[in-house]
Amino acid sequence: MTQTSQPGADAAGANAADITDEEIFAGHEGGKLSVELTAPLDTKRDLSIAYTPGVAQVSRAIAKDPALAAKYTWTNRLVVVVSDGSAVLGLGDIGPAASLPVMEGKSALFKKFAGLDSIPLVLSTSDPDEIVETLVRLRHSFGAVNLEDISAPRCFEIERKVIDALDCPVMHDDQHGTAIVVLAALKAATKVLGRDRSELRVVISGAGAAGVACAKILLADGISHITMVDSKGIVDATRTDLTPVKKELAAQTNPDGRSGSLSDALAGADVFLGVSAGTVPEEALASMNDDAVVFALSNPDPEVHPEVAAKYAAVVATGRSDFPNQINNVLAFPGVFRGALDAGATKITEDMKIAAADAIVEVLGDELAIDKIVPSPLDPRVAPAVAAAVARVAHN
Amino acid sequence: MTQTSQPGADAAGANAADITDEEIFAGHEGGKLSVELTAPLDTKRDLSIAYTPGVAQVSRAIAKDPALAAKYTWTNRLVVVVSDGSAVLGLGDIGPAASLPVMEGKSALFKKFAGLDSIPLVLSTSDPDEIVETLVRLRHSFGAVNLEDISAPRCFEIERKVIDALDCPVMHDDQHGTAIVVLAALKAATKVLGRDRSELRVVISGAGAAGVACAKILLADGISHITMVDSKGIVDATRTDLTPVKKELAAQTNPDGRSGSLSDALAGADVFLGVSAGTVPEEALASMNDDAVVFALSNPDPEVHPEVAAKYAAVVATGRSDFPNQINNVLAFPGVFRGALDAGATKITEDMKIAAADAIVEVLGDELAIDKIVPSPLDPRVAPAVAAAVARVAHN
Repeated sequence: MTQTSQPGADAAGANAADITDEEIFAGHEGGKLSVELTAPLDTKRDLSIAYTPGVAQVSRAIAKDPALAAKYTWTNRLVVVVSDGSAVLGLGDIGPAASLPVMEGKSALFKKFAGLDSIPLVLSTSDPDEIVETLVRLRHSFGAVNLEDISAPRCFEIERKVIDALDCPVMHDDQHGTAIVVLAALKAATKVLGRDRSELRVVISGAGAAGVACAKILLADGISHITMVDSKGIVDATRTDLTPVKKELAAQTNPDGRSGSLSDALAGADVFLGVSAGTVPEEALASMNDDAVVFALSNPDPEVHPEVAAKYAAVVATGRSDFPNQINNVLAFPGVFRGALDAGATKITEDMKIAAADAIVEVLGDELAIDKIVPSPLDPRVAPAVAAAVARVAHN
Repeated sequence: MTQTSQPGADAAGANAADITDEEIFAGHEGGKLSVELTAPLDTKRDLSIAYTPGVAQVSRAIAKDPALAAKYTWTNRLVVVVSDGSAVLGLGDIGPAASLPVMEGKSALFKKFAGLDSIPLVLSTSDPDEIVETLVRLRHSFGAVNLEDISAPRCFEIERKVIDALDCPVMHDDQHGTAIVVLAALKAATKVLGRDRSELRVVISGAGAAGVACAKILLADGISHITMVDSKGIVDATRTDLTPVKKELAAQTNPDGRSGSLSDALAGADVFLGVSAGTVPEEALASMNDDAVVFALSNPDPEVHPEVAAKYAAVVATGRSDFPNQINNVLAFPGVFRGALDAGATKITEDMKIAAADAIVEVLGDELAIDKIVPSPLDPRVAPAVAAAVARVAHN
C-alpha cells in the first residue's frame, strides 16, 4: 500500500498522509458528479409543465428571442471544463479518458465554491482547429468554457481562437487562474514587507502555460523588470530557438539583457517564481536581494523546500497544502467564472483578472501576515468576493 | 393569458388545464437540471482525495487500463441527449438554443425514471457527418447517446453513422422509443382481444422517424401485413418519389400492392397507427375490420378524437395523458439505456428493443384491460423491469 506524497494537515484535524490508495479509489467510484432535477417530477402536472406540452411554450419563446435561453435553461450557469488530456497535473499527456477524474474534480470545485454547474468535456483530438470547431458546434449547450490541462504552446493558440470564436467567457485556467493567484500573493507579500511592487526584479522559472500568463499579468500590473527562464536558460531575444509566444515575451522582459542559467538570472533578484518542474540551487537563492520572495509552486515537489527557501527569503509560498501560503487556483477560477456569468460578460478581460487578484488580497484584511499572504483554499469568503469584484469590472 | 392545450387530469387530482403560462415559465427559470457532488468537499482531506494529489492515482490507473474509466468516472451512467433542434415536438426546426428546454426535460426524465445522469448537447450544425464527427471527438465524455428531435430522413443516416462510429449504446428515441412502446401496446391490445398478431393487417400513417421505426419493429416481430402511408399516399414500390429509406420499406410492405390514399389503405385493415400530424376520415375508420385497434398518436391533436375512434375500434390509444392508454416514450427509453449501460452493451439491438416491449406488457399483468394496455408513464415499476429485460438480452 503506497501512500500519497502530500502530508497536509486536514482542516478537520486528520492528516492527509494517512490517506490510502483504497480510500482514493473508493472516493472516485462511480465518478464525483451527478445530474439532479431542480424541481420534482412526480405528477402528471409536473410532467406537463417540465416536458410536454408545457415545454413547447418555452421553446417557442426562445425561438423568438434567443436571449431568453439564458433565463430558461441551465446554460447561463453552466461551465464546460474542456481538455484533451495533453498536460494533466504532473502526469503529462495521458489523453482524454484518463484526464476525466481531474476534470470531474474541477467541475466539483466549480459547484462547491461558486454554485456553478459544470461538466467535463474531454476531447479525442489535440488539433487546435478541431477543438475550436467542436466548441463552436456546441456553443448553445453551455455558458462558459474553462480550458484545462492543454499543453503549451498549443494552449495559447487554442485559447486565443476559442475566445475569438465564442461570445461567452473563456479562460485557460492553468494560465490565468495561476496568474491571478500569483499576482494576489505577490501584492500581499509586498504589502506585508512594505515594498514597492514596481521596483521588484522578478525571475520566472518556467515558460509554459503558467509562466507565460504570470509574466503577462505582472507586466499588466506594472512590474517591468521580469526575467524568464525556460529549460534552455534565460529567455533572451538573441536566442534562435524561441516559440512565437516566447519571442514576444523576450521583447518585453529581460531588461538587463542577461543570458545564461537560472542562477545567472537570480543574482540580485527580489522574487523567484517557480512554475515548472525543476529545482533551484541554494547558492542561487543566496544571491537574491534582502527581503526576497520565493514562490516555489511546482507540485508535488517544490523547486526548493520551503524551509530551505526561508533561509534566504522573507516570504515563501508553495503549491502544497501542508506548508503555509498555498498558491491554489481554486482561489480564483470559481469566482472569476461566477462573476463573469453573473455580469453577462462575453469576455474575461485583463481588468477582470486583476480585480480578482485584488479581491483575494482584500479578503484577508488584517489577517494578512508573512505566513498568510493568501486565504485558505477552503475559505468560503473568497469566491463571492472575487465574483463580486469581477462582475463590477465587467459592468464598467 | 393562454392556457396549454392539454387538459389532462393530474395524478395528484389537479387538472392540467389550469396550468398557466406563468407557471410554465416559472417552472423553467434557471433550467431544470443541476450538477451536484456525489461526496462532500469540505475539508483539505476531501480535496486531497477528490482532487490533487489523490486524483493523480486514479488518472494513472485509467491511463494504464482505459476500461477503468467506466468504474472511476461518471461516464458509465451518463447519457448525452443530442439534438440539432431540427424536428422538435410539434414545433419543427427551431434550432439548438430553442430546443434546449426540451432536451433538459429529456435529461430530467432519464434521472427520474432510470437514475441515469444525463446532459443535453445541442449542436449548431445539421450536417450528418459533422454531428457524427463531434460525437466521435467527445466519445470519452459520456457512456451513451440518445439522439433526439432530428428531422427525417437525416435522422436515419445520422443514427446509422453514429452507431457505426461509437462503441457505446446509441438510440434515436423518436424512432425506437416510439416503436418499442407501440409494439408493447399492440401486443397488449391483441392479448386483450384474444387476437393473433401475425394475422393483423396494419396501416401506418406517417413515414417519418417514428413511422419507419414502427414498421421495422413490427416486421421484426413477425407482423408481415403492413401498409405505410405518407403525405403523398400509400408508399408503394411503383412510386418514383421515394427516399432510399421509404424505397427499402416499400419492398417489405404493402403486400396487397395497393396505391392511393389513407382511406384506400384502411379498407379491411385491423390496426390504424397514426404517427404523423394529420387526420383520418371517420368513413375510413368505419371501413376497418371488426375488433379494430386505433393508435392515434399525433400530439397534441390525435388523428381522430378517441371518442370518435371508439365507435369503430375495440381498443383506442393516443399520445395524450388526458385519455386512457397513453403511448409515451418514457415507458421505454429510460429503462432501455439503463439496461444497456448496466450490461456494458456496445449496441442497442433489435432483440433488446423487443425485450423492452415485452417487459412493458408484463408489468401490467392482471391489470391489463381494454382501457389499460400500457402502464402509466409515472409507473415506477416500468423502468426497472425494462432495464432488467434489456440487460438480460444484452448478456446473451
